[in-house]
Amino acid sequence: MGNDRGPGPAGGTPALGIVGAGQLARMMVEAASELGVRTVVLAARADDAAVPVASEVVLGEATGGRALADLVARCDIVTFDHEQVDLELLHQLEREGARLRPGLRTLRVAVDKAEMRARLAAEGLPVPRYEVLDGDARGPEQLAAAVCTFAGLEGWPVVVKAARGGYDGKGVWSVDGEAAARALCEEAASARIPLLVEAHVDIDVELAVVVARGEDGASVAWPPVETAQVGGVCREVRFPGRLDPDLAGRAAALAQEVASVVDATGVLAVELFSSDGRLFVNEIAARPHNSAHWTIEGATTSQFENHVRAVLGFPLGDTSPLAAHVASVNVFGAPSAEAELGEAELGDRMSAALSVRGAHVHLYGKTPRPGRKLGHVTVCGDEPADVRTRAWAAAQALGTPIPDSLDVAAS
Amino acid sequence: MGNDRGPGPAGGTPALGIVGAGQLARMMVEAASELGVRTVVLAARADDAAVPVASEVVLGEATGGRALADLVARCDIVTFDHEQVDLELLHQLEREGARLRPGLRTLRVAVDKAEMRARLAAEGLPVPRYEVLDGDARGPEQLAAAVCTFAGLEGWPVVVKAARGGYDGKGVWSVDGEAAARALCEEAASARIPLLVEAHVDIDVELAVVVARGEDGASVAWPPVETAQVGGVCREVRFPGRLDPDLAGRAAALAQEVASVVDATGVLAVELFSSDGRLFVNEIAARPHNSAHWTIEGATTSQFENHVRAVLGFPLGDTSPLAAHVASVNVFGAPSAEAELGEAELGDRMSAALSVRGAHVHLYGKTPRPGRKLGHVTVCGDEPADVRTRAWAAAQALGTPIPDSLDVAAS
Repeated sequence: MGNDRGPGPAGGTPALGIVGAGQLARMMVEAASELGVRTVVLAARADDAAVPVASEVVLGEATGGRALADLVARCDIVTFDHEQVDLELLHQLEREGARLRPGLRTLRVAVDKAEMRARLAAEGLPVPRYEVLDGDARGPEQLAAAVCTFAGLEGWPVVVKAARGGYDGKGVWSVDGEAAARALCEEAASARIPLLVEAHVDIDVELAVVVARGEDGASVAWPPVETAQVGGVCREVRFPGRLDPDLAGRAAALAQEVASVVDATGVLAVELFSSDGRLFVNEIAARPHNSAHWTIEGATTSQFENHVRAVLGFPLGDTSPLAAHVASVNVFGAPSAEAELGEAELGDRMSAALSVRGAHVHLYGKTPRPGRKLGHVTVCGDEPADVRTRAWAAAQALGTPIPDSLDVAAS
Repeated sequence: MGNDRGPGPAGGTPALGIVGAGQLARMMVEAASELGVRTVVLAARADDAAVPVASEVVLGEATGGRALADLVARCDIVTFDHEQVDLELLHQLEREGARLRPGLRTLRVAVDKAEMRARLAAEGLPVPRYEVLDGDARGPEQLAAAVCTFAGLEGWPVVVKAARGGYDGKGVWSVDGEAAARALCEEAASARIPLLVEAHVDIDVELAVVVARGEDGASVAWPPVETAQVGGVCREVRFPGRLDPDLAGRAAALAQEVASVVDATGVLAVELFSSDGRLFVNEIAARPHNSAHWTIEGATTSQFENHVRAVLGFPLGDTSPLAAHVASVNVFGAPSAEAELGEAELGDRMSAALSVRGAHVHLYGKTPRPGRKLGHVTVCGDEPADVRTRAWAAAQALGTPIPDSLDVAAS
């Protein structure tokens, strides 16, 4: 074992280190615990979601050399809760013997959308037409001119993205003309944010496929799901949603090809657009992903368990769905300041949520704040409208605002 | 919140204290984590199973006044992993304001088989004929004479039990004649073990029903299961096993009556014998129980989640089964010294277990020792023989010896 702070786990499983301690780390820890695996998380804050359940905690930044070295020293395998990492630092640790899963080859693609686009395009995989804007070589005027030139070919609007650091809709802008392009490019240049510009895709449906892949290249995919985004933020995941078997089959095959191209170890999520019957890769994440939280109750093996299995070198579990329909709805802090609610009222909300039949309530142990993602609710069943209605009822009971655009009442 | 060691949980859920930190506590912690609930365990040893996952750990004996007071101070509700507690001490803490779930009224019955028998018999519930042997008032000769007098009425063999402190077949002896009675009573008297003697029951099938009950008296039961014991130790749990719907229905109703009689809050397990169509209550446990580990994957809500819900005052979840057949097999350390196995070989075992299709492997993080309960494996499916075969295959891959009496090969 890489640490001497107690006996090793039963069954010869190594200790698992996780860079980051958010809700994904928390759910990895829950899955690891079931397998008897010890976990060590690198947490930026003492109140991060995974801190109360991890076997050990290293406090420090994911980009901090000393903290990372401490994490590596305490465990056998290191995996990731997020992409806000320093690739050079990780590369050095890998050279010194750290076992990172996924490895650098995958991380480079996962942390940089320009790199991701280039890698997938080079393999002939379908991505929207794009151009990387080299901010170092060009001032804001030249950046904006490049956006306008691109739009001249592809038509307005175009989509401008931060190549690094974006998440949950942050770092993605729809730009509908020259004035907007200028304003955005000035802001990005002053913040030294590297950009790419992409053609707008007319989206019929947004979907996601999560794949688990072993170091030996064997991979399994959970069934594709429809995702419902509002302002770039995932609010609801539906299995199977509006995905017909043909589309779902092509999406799963494409996602497994992506996992192979980027040489993933562990879980890899592929977010896709379907447009007029054609699929485009939108984003990828080389870690467990919001679009597969439903697998905790909805599939034989959850994404978190298979991520733990894959990065530790164990065989992957069955990804078959366990119900005909599953809805998973994210829980967000209500616009009013939740922190001002008394304990009794918060308890009442929890009681109301847990009284919804078959509602699997997951809370991440985070202090409620307006708009903060606090948990999710999954419901499995036979009828799509029924599972959606119940999942939203429980999420709403916990304070989640219902977006008008999702047509929940009519579901 | 009862502690100031970090932010409270989201959703207004209180911090949950657990007396004891074994595998039941570990699985309670896993369920609590999903609900966003912080946990504090009172652990006798730093390497107890729940220690690596609990939010906080108090080190000390479950019968230690200072340790218990520390636990109570750090949380809002206290529940239990085992029955090796000091009732007087708990009574005092309750008087001082500690919120124990289950409360003293239930604990008194759970820790003392004589008390349990008396309470159930007084309500007319079916228990084997029994007599409490008052060890304080009688020497070993008189105890043995009382056993023989009881056997004179009921016939040999009789079952002698330690009223307190027994578990997993320990503290239960089948006594087939006067010589055996004398030997046992001498040993028990010198160890000051309080005894009771019971009539032997010709068992057709051993079954168990686990009930969750709220403080408001509302209760739900999981479907009864057949349990397979070897030497008093549960080796396998089968849903529905050989239980026909009539027997299962009567068993569930009886168990819910038991839960009501003992005023349980949280999960209560009732172990039953079926003999010639009649049901007898054998043992009860006022906590989650080995006979319902299968509910983690096999039922909509697990016994651990409903225990957490019940003791915290939240509504109980649906106990419906999710598969037609479920087998859950306990994992034990192999007779050979597992500790001598290298990490690679233990890893190979885990890989072999996880390669069994649909095998849900739970390990409790305990150091393997011969005969030690290390985990369990659950398989859900459509065919009873198939789920048994797969569950045993995974358990055997992890080193579990297969008892001849269970007819696993032929299953």
